[in-house]
Amino acid sequence: MPHLHLEYTANLTQLDTDKALLRLNHALVASGQFGAEFDIKSRAVQVDSFRVGTGLNERGFVAARLALLSGRSPQVKQQLSQSLLAVLQDLGPWPEGVQVQLSVELRDMDRDTYSKAAVGS
Amino acid sequence: MPHLHLEYTANLTQLDTDKALLRLNHALVASGQFGAEFDIKSRAVQVDSFRVGTGLNERGFVAARLALLSGRSPQVKQQLSQSLLAVLQDLGPWPEGVQVQLSVELRDMDRDTYSKAAVGS
Amino acid sequence: MPHLHLEYTANLTQLDTDKALLRLNHALVASGQFGAEFDIKSRAVQVDSFRVGTGLNERGFVAARLALLSGRSPQVKQQLSQSLLAVLQDLGPWPEGVQVQLSVELRDMDRDTYSKAAVGS
Repeated sequence: MPHLHLEYTANLTQLDTDKALLRLNHALVASGQFGAEFDIKSRAVQVDSFRVGTGLNERGFVAARLALLSGRSPQVKQQLSQSLLAVLQDLGPWPEGVQVQLSVELRDMDRDTYSKAAVGS
Repeated sequence: MPHLHLEYTANLTQLDTDKALLRLNHALVASGQFGAEFDIKSRAVQVDSFRVGTGLNERGFVAARLALLSGRSPQVKQQLSQSLLAVLQDLGPWPEGVQVQLSVELRDMDRDTYSKAAVGS
Repeated sequence: MPHLHLEYTANLTQLDTDKALLRLNHALVASGQFGAEFDIKSRAVQVDSFRVGTGLNERGFVAARLALLSGRSPQVKQQLSQSLLAVLQDLGPWPEGVQVQLSVELRDMDRDTYSKAAVGS
């Protein structure tokens, strides 16, 4: 906890996912909501097959989804959502002529049935 | 909003994902539930490593997941679910000798903590 | 129903996903919670682009997510979560020098708006 998924369409060829994930994780650490920085588990997935709407002009998206253990207040979650969106908005430059939609979803994970363990060293 | 994920197992080699996504998006537009066609963000992901149950016969699946901002009625969501399933059922032909399971899940996204922005042109 | 997603970071090169998925499915069958073994639809996805926290030491994760139709008790879901975590803990050996986090999330799918069908033979 937390888990962050970042999806981005393959036409956003200039996106530096290493930099994006590091910035997103720094924003989560800076929120003060998480006990240990190493708890933040983030991944970026390129979407090769996609379709935005039904129109013909070129479009893409970057969609972040943050899954948290249940129990945080709506205010805290709104702040997290806004801070992650701010990171996404700063990830450009974006390709010429592509309409890009950015989104951030916050999702609760049921605390009572979440299990975890650490292995290795 | 909305976000649609379409997963399909790699043994469904005849599946035309471009056509599938376009048909799914058209079904969503036709529902009249969404203000603008370009809000519909859909992606298809091939699943290369999978296992259906524990039996030995060949199996596969196509799983659609539609994430909506919270607030729609169960009736509206049932209709959306059924209309997406109808699209999946029409995606064949399917490979000989493969048991294929089709499914559609509707999932609410918390409206109060969803953030978005548009960039580019 | 159910759907299981298994994500693992690309630095866990010794992970045998076929074996992992089969063991996870056997654990689900053994729980007695599911009517038919072929209903269990599991997939493993390698995560190539990831970042755990903000530190520099090498880290990885294996994250399982089980989606069930709504209605099962917290106790049943806790048992399922623990039995899946036990499978993950037994998936080693793990690479030397990598901190690996294992997690299991249980997620309800809304029963009233889930649709499914079977095709092929």
